[in-house]
Amino acid sequence: MAGKEKRVEAITAMDQDFTQWYTDVVLKSELIDYSSVKGCMILRPYGFAIWENIQKNLDQMFKDTGHENVAMPMFIPESLLQKEKDHVEGFAPEVAWVTHGGSEKLAERLCIRPTSETLFCDHYSQIIQSWRDLPKLYNQWVSVVRWEKTTRPFLRSTEFYWQEGHTAHATAQEAVEETIRMLNVYADFYRDYLAIPVVKGQKTEKEKFAGAVDTYTVEAMMHDGKALQSATSHYFGDGFAKAFEIQYSDKNNQLQYVHQTSWGLSTRSIGAIIMVHGDDSGLVLPPRIAPIQTVIVPIAAHKAGVLEKAKEMKAELAKQFRVKLDDSDKMPGWKFSEYEMKGVPLRIELGPRDLEQNQCVAVRRDNGEKIVLSLDGLTESVQTLLDEIHEGLYQRALESLNSRIYDASDWQTMSELIAEKPGFVRAMWCGDLACELMIKEELGATSRCLPFDQVKVADTCVCCGKPAVKEVIWGKAY
Amino acid sequence: MAGKEKRVEAITAMDQDFTQWYTDVVLKSELIDYSSVKGCMILRPYGFAIWENIQKNLDQMFKDTGHENVAMPMFIPESLLQKEKDHVEGFAPEVAWVTHGGSEKLAERLCIRPTSETLFCDHYSQIIQSWRDLPKLYNQWVSVVRWEKTTRPFLRSTEFYWQEGHTAHATAQEAVEETIRMLNVYADFYRDYLAIPVVKGQKTEKEKFAGAVDTYTVEAMMHDGKALQSATSHYFGDGFAKAFEIQYSDKNNQLQYVHQTSWGLSTRSIGAIIMVHGDDSGLVLPPRIAPIQTVIVPIAAHKAGVLEKAKEMKAELAKQFRVKLDDSDKMPGWKFSEYEMKGVPLRIELGPRDLEQNQCVAVRRDNGEKIVLSLDGLTESVQTLLDEIHEGLYQRALESLNSRIYDASDWQTMSELIAEKPGFVRAMWCGDLACELMIKEELGATSRCLPFDQVKVADTCVCCGKPAVKEVIWGKAY
Repeated sequence: MAGKEKRVEAITAMDQDFTQWYTDVVLKSELIDYSSVKGCMILRPYGFAIWENIQKNLDQMFKDTGHENVAMPMFIPESLLQKEKDHVEGFAPEVAWVTHGGSEKLAERLCIRPTSETLFCDHYSQIIQSWRDLPKLYNQWVSVVRWEKTTRPFLRSTEFYWQEGHTAHATAQEAVEETIRMLNVYADFYRDYLAIPVVKGQKTEKEKFAGAVDTYTVEAMMHDGKALQSATSHYFGDGFAKAFEIQYSDKNNQLQYVHQTSWGLSTRSIGAIIMVHGDDSGLVLPPRIAPIQTVIVPIAAHKAGVLEKAKEMKAELAKQFRVKLDDSDKMPGWKFSEYEMKGVPLRIELGPRDLEQNQCVAVRRDNGEKIVLSLDGLTESVQTLLDEIHEGLYQRALESLNSRIYDASDWQTMSELIAEKPGFVRAMWCGDLACELMIKEELGATSRCLPFDQVKVADTCVCCGKPAVKEVIWGKAY
Repeated sequence: MAGKEKRVEAITAMDQDFTQWYTDVVLKSELIDYSSVKGCMILRPYGFAIWENIQKNLDQMFKDTGHENVAMPMFIPESLLQKEKDHVEGFAPEVAWVTHGGSEKLAERLCIRPTSETLFCDHYSQIIQSWRDLPKLYNQWVSVVRWEKTTRPFLRSTEFYWQEGHTAHATAQEAVEETIRMLNVYADFYRDYLAIPVVKGQKTEKEKFAGAVDTYTVEAMMHDGKALQSATSHYFGDGFAKAFEIQYSDKNNQLQYVHQTSWGLSTRSIGAIIMVHGDDSGLVLPPRIAPIQTVIVPIAAHKAGVLEKAKEMKAELAKQFRVKLDDSDKMPGWKFSEYEMKGVPLRIELGPRDLEQNQCVAVRRDNGEKIVLSLDGLTESVQTLLDEIHEGLYQRALESLNSRIYDASDWQTMSELIAEKPGFVRAMWCGDLACELMIKEELGATSRCLPFDQVKVADTCVCCGKPAVKEVIWGKAY
């Protein structure tokens, strides 16, 4: 029977073709499937379960910082989208338009939200009157639509899933603090749940969000050295407030404009997990968001007592972990490959000889290490191992990041690094758009951010040689 | 300061104008706000928190019965929607059409899902090959869009939130069992979480879902005697499987069509909560889904020890309940009205004299009863009271339902009952569409369901006098 099973097919090696490796992994680990709509993906149970775990944990961090969830409509009337000039210019070219409802043509076109600033602003203008109504700290978990020409699962799709926080504050200072607070929440979330280190910084004028005064970002480095913009947080000042007339009476009964922020993290984060931790055997999932944290594989399951003990272990571990017992009739070797492909952090093998010795064998997905565990105190041992795996993944990713950040103080060095060394380049910048554009055109690298932790690599701009004002991190990006 | 507060405005009395009462309640308890898009509502934090609690508990029931969550695209290509004839006829007149992406006209129009049978079928045709792939027990939590002419918050809106389960099985019998299983899950959920009794039954041919072989429903009775179809479960046979070519190899290597189901529960359930439990003071929320289960209101909070003790109580109760301490400077009377409007199941008052006597006063929202509770063992007392409130709400709703189900064995009685007695009418039916249509046209009542618990009210059809085949429950409906 087991011989008839669909075998786990090999995937393309990472170093041979990283793009193909990525596609192989997302399909063969059954995270997604393609749909009949161009650029839209189907999140399959295993992929959606990762997103559910991301949602659950990040949502708790939002609630712990005082945020509330709401649900806005998916439609934005064209006139509403057009209220903030920079915003509409940024988004109008890539929205989907609804023109007909049933058999009737609509009097006004509706776009499907590419992001919901305009909807939140419209609502805020209705519900904010007094300083007592502030701050408003709202968030929503939804999908949004951007009509992309080239799409890739998780990284860039026409419809994608995210959360978008939208807040309104009495003062500019409070709004700036919120913007930075939420960027830090994202960085902490990446470190503590996804085991991914990020570089925190500010976007340049060119790269900032349409309608924002300032955009902040967390940038992660993928296995191939490319950058992934992993979440962003925007400070809007009172620009949207003026466009949408969001005013409140302050304590002196004076009308004031609110100051706003927005911030978002999307299913791109799953792309980051794949490309930071994955290897040639497939996914490697950080334990805190893995749909299956531990899989139990009985060996010689027909032998007396093995299956019974495995079931007992499962019941015990399930009190604290997301655990699966695979007692199907497939061969153990097949199961090993299957759960390696799916990135299950810890595999526990239990055979007749283990049973005799009151032990089992745990195998770590991150480094292949085999550890003999006593069946006494197994829950504690598994917890310790999962924490060690998380920490191991983080440290490995941190070393990978740090070892591939290079300094360039002149154009020649910079162009060689960009061309030959996958990774980030630290270089000084004069602040002129012209230099940023030239680096993009000539070298194919974009400014990832002006990092919060500034390092003075040189005194002059790497491009034009004029006095530098900021260190910028440059790289090729997804 | 407190005098300047916005006062809780009175709402229209239920018996004076039920429709206006409903609108007043949803707006003044801050469940929703209207948006700039016709027929689309904004779920505000308090309204969305109810939906989150519904989701959390119902989702657990789905997972306990083996279902997995996925996420399908929001778009359906026109050609895909047209694959199943009855289905497209039912839904095409009320869908929103996307015709442009960015500045380009699409080669094929996309509708925004009014329901997702076609998307799941398309996916199932890709991923189901063998009997080993069955059953597929999928669900998703999303919003859907139906272009409605007349809308009301929660009851009928252009965009609404729901879950839709879609399953595929090897045999008809398994699919039928699933259809009934999920109907029972809905009935249990209404009883155990929303404290709402429902009538379970089958829809007539006329009222069934577009594309279904059989549709089952749970029907609840609102305060005004009208019926609310509260969730439905559909058996599709192999109709969709044939239209979408969803076949599997059975154990004998023969190709077979799958048999399918779908089932859904929406934000209408919040409408049911409002119209079953609410009263002239506002919402009355069942404790298990209430965003705030208990509110603590300190009395004479400036007196020594009151606020400290209130905070201590809050910290203790928060370990087990969703609890809020309102220590704002508003007057206690204002707070009482506010949390009555918001339907908080239990209010706890704590003043200086209570403190002296190591007690507090609990006030039940459902019946206004005041209970003096010792501060010792408060968590247990609150748990007991919340369970009693749940049970009290359920029993009151059950009595309200049972006392307003009337029997009619002839046309005259039926027409008088429908005209004069708000509620359900049990009457026999010959099974002919003509009689069902005549009852709708002449009396304004629709067939709610053929209840599972059949009562033989008479021998002949209440309309035509021919031999009856089934008892039907008739009523006016939302």
